[in-house]
Amino acid sequence: MKLEKIPKIVAHRLALYHRCLRNLYENGERLISSYELGKFLDLKPSQVRKDLSYFGAFGVRGKGYDVKYLLKTIESILGVSKPWRMVLIGAGNLGRAILNYEELRKCGFEIIGVFDNDPKKIGEQFAGHVIRSVEELEDFVKKSGVNIGVIAVPPKSAQKVADLLVSCGVRYLINFSPIKLKLPPGVLVEDVDISIPFKVLTFKILESEEMRI
Amino acid sequence: MKLEKIPKIVAHRLALYHRCLRNLYENGERLISSYELGKFLDLKPSQVRKDLSYFGAFGVRGKGYDVKYLLKTIESILGVSKPWRMVLIGAGNLGRAILNYEELRKCGFEIIGVFDNDPKKIGEQFAGHVIRSVEELEDFVKKSGVNIGVIAVPPKSAQKVADLLVSCGVRYLINFSPIKLKLPPGVLVEDVDISIPFKVLTFKILESEEMRI
Repeated sequence: MKLEKIPKIVAHRLALYHRCLRNLYENGERLISSYELGKFLDLKPSQVRKDLSYFGAFGVRGKGYDVKYLLKTIESILGVSKPWRMVLIGAGNLGRAILNYEELRKCGFEIIGVFDNDPKKIGEQFAGHVIRSVEELEDFVKKSGVNIGVIAVPPKSAQKVADLLVSCGVRYLINFSPIKLKLPPGVLVEDVDISIPFKVLTFKILESEEMRI
Repeated sequence: MKLEKIPKIVAHRLALYHRCLRNLYENGERLISSYELGKFLDLKPSQVRKDLSYFGAFGVRGKGYDVKYLLKTIESILGVSKPWRMVLIGAGNLGRAILNYEELRKCGFEIIGVFDNDPKKIGEQFAGHVIRSVEELEDFVKKSGVNIGVIAVPPKSAQKVADLLVSCGVRYLINFSPIKLKLPPGVLVEDVDISIPFKVLTFKILESEEMRI
């Protein structure tokens, strides 16, 4: 199945469908209509049908979509059906929240190493991990077969950590710091800025209150 | 200025433009082209021009956009130019990461009260806040004029916390738990699921490696 036409915004929605479908499946649901799926995700049924048609999933009129088939297909498209081995850099509150985020473990995202440069944290145990010095990162990456590096350090250190990860051979990054990283070609990054949903919410509040000037 | 036509996906990009423009302005930049802005945000110049035209911002050919004007206009559209008073429920690692997230403070999002139900945490000081019992929430909300409730509790408690916030009169929520909240009409919520960017990244990885089956 060649899927080069799926735009990024659809990938984002597929990630939402994925969580929703897994919950439905775990709750014993076997069929779902585009109307119900849309209701769960605040999308129009026509949008749901269009999104799912990107990869050839078509519901049966009057019955709906097969939940298991849809779930397995979306898992395969998103790549969450295979295990991903990740290192986490930054063992502060954000890093620890990521370590504890159950949804990640459920989807095959496994943190296999946690690193920090704070001598007070190095050697400490958290959530089954020993926090290691970033000086050990290169050796660790070479020995352990790491796919993804997760950057959860303060903004001023984020570029340095990204450079270090790339120099160790990590080509895929999740960046939780609100800065734009400079990266060589071939390195993929997904930025997570926790402030974005707050700004989208206040946009919606103003819109709903018609407080525009 | 009436802006009802701005779709949510554009609001999301405006939040990205906002951070970028503020950084540019702080660095002394006064003019920027759609090409440069697009480069910062991985968008095509045509997309940038289309997004900005939603609210009547047009660049001057050969010169570009006025950074300050654009920044102030987007601030006003997103509502981040005014202060928002928030309560945070959940003083675990995720809650503490939110408390420390500088970008939020920079944008006028002020956490004025932190609540938890863990007796071990109640009374503790963190980042200039005393952690209060959720039992005090109702009184606090009534006395303090709270706009937004931030839910950073484990998934199994999220609906209960949402119900409590709504019963206290809080109508706008940010939900960091990966569950779909059931809310009465008129309550706005923005969901933040930290696992989504991981799934979008692996989608892109598979796409780039052409590992599709």
